[in-house]
Amino acid sequence: MDSGGLTLSCQFIDLDLGGNQVVLHADDAEEIGVHPQHRVHVRFGDESLVAVVDTTSSVVEPGRIGVFPGVADDLGLEADAQLEVQPAEKPESVEFIRKKMNGRELDTDEIARLVEDMVQGSLTDIELSAYVTSVEIHDMNIRETTDLTRSMVETGEVIDFHDPMIFDKHSIGGVPGNKITLLVVPIAAAAGLPIPKTSSRAITGAAGTSDVMEVFCDVKLTAERIRSITNDVGGVMAWGGAVNLAPADDIIIRVEHPLSLDPRSLLLASVMAKKRAVGAKHVVIDIPMGPGSKIATMEEAKSLARDFIALGDRLGMQVECAITYGGQPVGKTVGPALEANEALRALRGDPDVPESFTKKATAIAGILLEMGGLARRGRGQQEAQRLLEDGSALETFSEIVQAQGGPEPELQPVGDHTWELVADKDGYVAGVGNRDIVAITRSLGAPKVKGAGVELPKKEGDSVEEGETLLKLYAESEYKLEAARKLATSKDPVTVEGMLLERVPEFREIGDEPSGPGPDPSADGNGGIRQVAPEADDDNEADTEAETAADGS
Amino acid sequence: MDSGGLTLSCQFIDLDLGGNQVVLHADDAEEIGVHPQHRVHVRFGDESLVAVVDTTSSVVEPGRIGVFPGVADDLGLEADAQLEVQPAEKPESVEFIRKKMNGRELDTDEIARLVEDMVQGSLTDIELSAYVTSVEIHDMNIRETTDLTRSMVETGEVIDFHDPMIFDKHSIGGVPGNKITLLVVPIAAAAGLPIPKTSSRAITGAAGTSDVMEVFCDVKLTAERIRSITNDVGGVMAWGGAVNLAPADDIIIRVEHPLSLDPRSLLLASVMAKKRAVGAKHVVIDIPMGPGSKIATMEEAKSLARDFIALGDRLGMQVECAITYGGQPVGKTVGPALEANEALRALRGDPDVPESFTKKATAIAGILLEMGGLARRGRGQQEAQRLLEDGSALETFSEIVQAQGGPEPELQPVGDHTWELVADKDGYVAGVGNRDIVAITRSLGAPKVKGAGVELPKKEGDSVEEGETLLKLYAESEYKLEAARKLATSKDPVTVEGMLLERVPEFREIGDEPSGPGPDPSADGNGGIRQVAPEADDDNEADTEAETAADGS
Repeated sequence: MDSGGLTLSCQFIDLDLGGNQVVLHADDAEEIGVHPQHRVHVRFGDESLVAVVDTTSSVVEPGRIGVFPGVADDLGLEADAQLEVQPAEKPESVEFIRKKMNGRELDTDEIARLVEDMVQGSLTDIELSAYVTSVEIHDMNIRETTDLTRSMVETGEVIDFHDPMIFDKHSIGGVPGNKITLLVVPIAAAAGLPIPKTSSRAITGAAGTSDVMEVFCDVKLTAERIRSITNDVGGVMAWGGAVNLAPADDIIIRVEHPLSLDPRSLLLASVMAKKRAVGAKHVVIDIPMGPGSKIATMEEAKSLARDFIALGDRLGMQVECAITYGGQPVGKTVGPALEANEALRALRGDPDVPESFTKKATAIAGILLEMGGLARRGRGQQEAQRLLEDGSALETFSEIVQAQGGPEPELQPVGDHTWELVADKDGYVAGVGNRDIVAITRSLGAPKVKGAGVELPKKEGDSVEEGETLLKLYAESEYKLEAARKLATSKDPVTVEGMLLERVPEFREIGDEPSGPGPDPSADGNGGIRQVAPEADDDNEADTEAETAADGS
Repeated sequence: MDSGGLTLSCQFIDLDLGGNQVVLHADDAEEIGVHPQHRVHVRFGDESLVAVVDTTSSVVEPGRIGVFPGVADDLGLEADAQLEVQPAEKPESVEFIRKKMNGRELDTDEIARLVEDMVQGSLTDIELSAYVTSVEIHDMNIRETTDLTRSMVETGEVIDFHDPMIFDKHSIGGVPGNKITLLVVPIAAAAGLPIPKTSSRAITGAAGTSDVMEVFCDVKLTAERIRSITNDVGGVMAWGGAVNLAPADDIIIRVEHPLSLDPRSLLLASVMAKKRAVGAKHVVIDIPMGPGSKIATMEEAKSLARDFIALGDRLGMQVECAITYGGQPVGKTVGPALEANEALRALRGDPDVPESFTKKATAIAGILLEMGGLARRGRGQQEAQRLLEDGSALETFSEIVQAQGGPEPELQPVGDHTWELVADKDGYVAGVGNRDIVAITRSLGAPKVKGAGVELPKKEGDSVEEGETLLKLYAESEYKLEAARKLATSKDPVTVEGMLLERVPEFREIGDEPSGPGPDPSADGNGGIRQVAPEADDDNEADTEAETAADGS
């Protein structure tokens, strides 16, 4: 052992604190001249890594070194293994973080080494946060973003299909109930386009694609199974976390998340790295837009779309983007089992499944079909619709589920503790608040509790009668139901606007005479909207007639 | 206990991870709906705080909550105490951090709440780093900095002397061996200026003022003792860490340090908060400048000085700044005991103590005397010199040391394992590298090992003969001496330039005829610098004569 180091026996400490961390007794730390937040090389046989030091007087004794799970796994340690510990210099990439902080462009090599250090676990939360904050403020240009994407791919597992025609889909998220993947993948695979889709679990959302798919079958597929199942049946819907694709992504997200940051260049690299890591060459990206989603304006959506396409171009990938409506949840369900069932019903052709859901799915799938040369431009959705209607997509979905270890897909049980939020007045749904819906669904226990979720019988624009259900809550325990009920009643998740939008003031303007007291026979599905003068004697009667006319829209 | 919370019994975990952290078993965390990096309210009797959650499957059992030292101290916990734990929202100050990230000015109230949350310990490293990085990039204006300073004072202990004439001194650091406080404080106190000086220990440096003073006496004074001793003998030299002055400062520094950041507004607030917290109204700030210090140019030094004065003005404090030479260590010693002895020798009037040290000290003290109306402008240094020479400063120093619990000050033992780096050629000292000197001194064990340090017999401009000592290392163990020796020989801490700077090339320019082969009799203390034409026959003889003339400078 070189002078300046120590040999210490390891002790496992199961805490997930991010990065590689080890705990030294204060005396041992002093001995080798390291302080908390300094780094050490830790070596076990042929394996070594750099870890950040915490010190203690009690958690470990002198002669011992506390190791957190990341270190134990990376070094393949057993309890009491003897580790060689020496002071380590701060990684050079801390200088690169300073460089970006100073608003300068990073070299290809600097980016590569920064990502390597991230993935090695040798950067602290303080350093990672400084990087993400600096990128939020200064951003990275397309060249840097391309290099970042490549480095994120290269520092993780890559699945090589030896096939230039690999397809993939991604949604940037921000809209609950976005279960379309469970239609898009089977449609594309049924058409013969290999689509090895990996997805995440919900971090802040109510149910990620993996949470929903997991209702039917295993999603923790290895790289090898992803490859073999895609080769056999045309596609998978796997959990990305079980494969080590672009691991820097999770490291970055972990630091972005508490700060609610999503700087453009990191979002681009995050999405494209995961796609590239499975060798995708043709990618459709769903960009939900609208109030309560991640993207507020069409301008911002188009800017993001252009950026994705430009980055794809530099990476040799064909990218198309679909800007979709994200102002309310997709379909009528939010929560793993409820969404799984809605998707299965859609695949089975159930007419009660809202068209807004199936149409979105076939539109996205249609883009893939067009990219794959299986439909002329503009005809893809039609072809996707055909594959859905003729049962091909259902059949392929069933093959995928079974290849992933599940039984023939059937409707799944949902929470049996239910409660319904009802309308306290007549009107129409003026809005469904995405964030409130997510909060309520999470308080019901989603995504961990599979049967937890909500049903939205009414969507934006639907008419509503007093007493009708606006939102149905499903929980697996009375306790969770109660917590969610409180939340739902304190929020206004489904906003109902009355029939009566406004009363004409006493002093009417000339020419504002109402045409008559009766309802407007051309009332649309909004349930009719009338202005009523205050001096009309038969107000109430007129209202009643209007409502009657609007029933059944 | 409200629904949504749990009662858990506490288990101490001695790790210093920054902020308030607690460890929940994964099941308990799930139960109340929190994830790692989320926050909880933790309540014990009347005390409560917000802490960040880590989860585990093994470090604590279900029903138990692991608490780190900060939480245990703040809540006054005993082992197995029953704590009430409920999910907590993210502090609002995270929004203020985002606001600064977006380059916007923070309100007085936002700053106050941000500092409160820092001091409460409810901000994570990720959030604190985002704040510091954002300030590094966007900075804060003078109004924000003033508010930050006030908030930093108000969230900590304040020592009220009920005396508008409190004096103080600060150095921004960056130059090793800067032991002048041990002269400045006694001189000012001897003159009757109350000077309750608190200082830090070295974080990255070789020896902070507190490390040096601690060689003579206790520095861990309470606020009450700081007040009483200052009232009794005129001054103290205490360790700020033992009093809870401006605690936000340490929290910010902890995050700045790994990133090597020192944004202007935070530096200003850091210094002025500590001074204000002891009620100082008249402050002199030493700004060392030069290669290897924190400030590279006079322009930067003046800018910083102006900022300190402007901030002081807004805070109702009179500030003067001294821009001093920081391109090499102050005096001839670096390291706690060695510096302590050099200071004591200076107080005793030992002529071997370099004038560069005593003159710096009296210049700084002189500014205080002028601010205190005890000397006319421009005469302060003279008056300070008098107090040094007539023994008043020594007497006051002795009183302070004894009031702080030490014996009558005597020269202290230093490390007895020594090694000397000698010059391998004749010449003069062209430079002494501050950073190398600090690195060597720290590798010897300073500041923790009091007797560790270095001596510099030669300073910039001194002439050197081959074989003379350039640097003497003192260690308390052979092991540390060896490590430091290796470091010293691998670096070039004391750079010696030879007498012969350059040889005139074969093709001389017209008019460059040397005036003669002999030495230049007007040679200054640099040891003489001559250009020698390659065709002169008596080169060597001429060199020898020149060196002889330069000896003894």
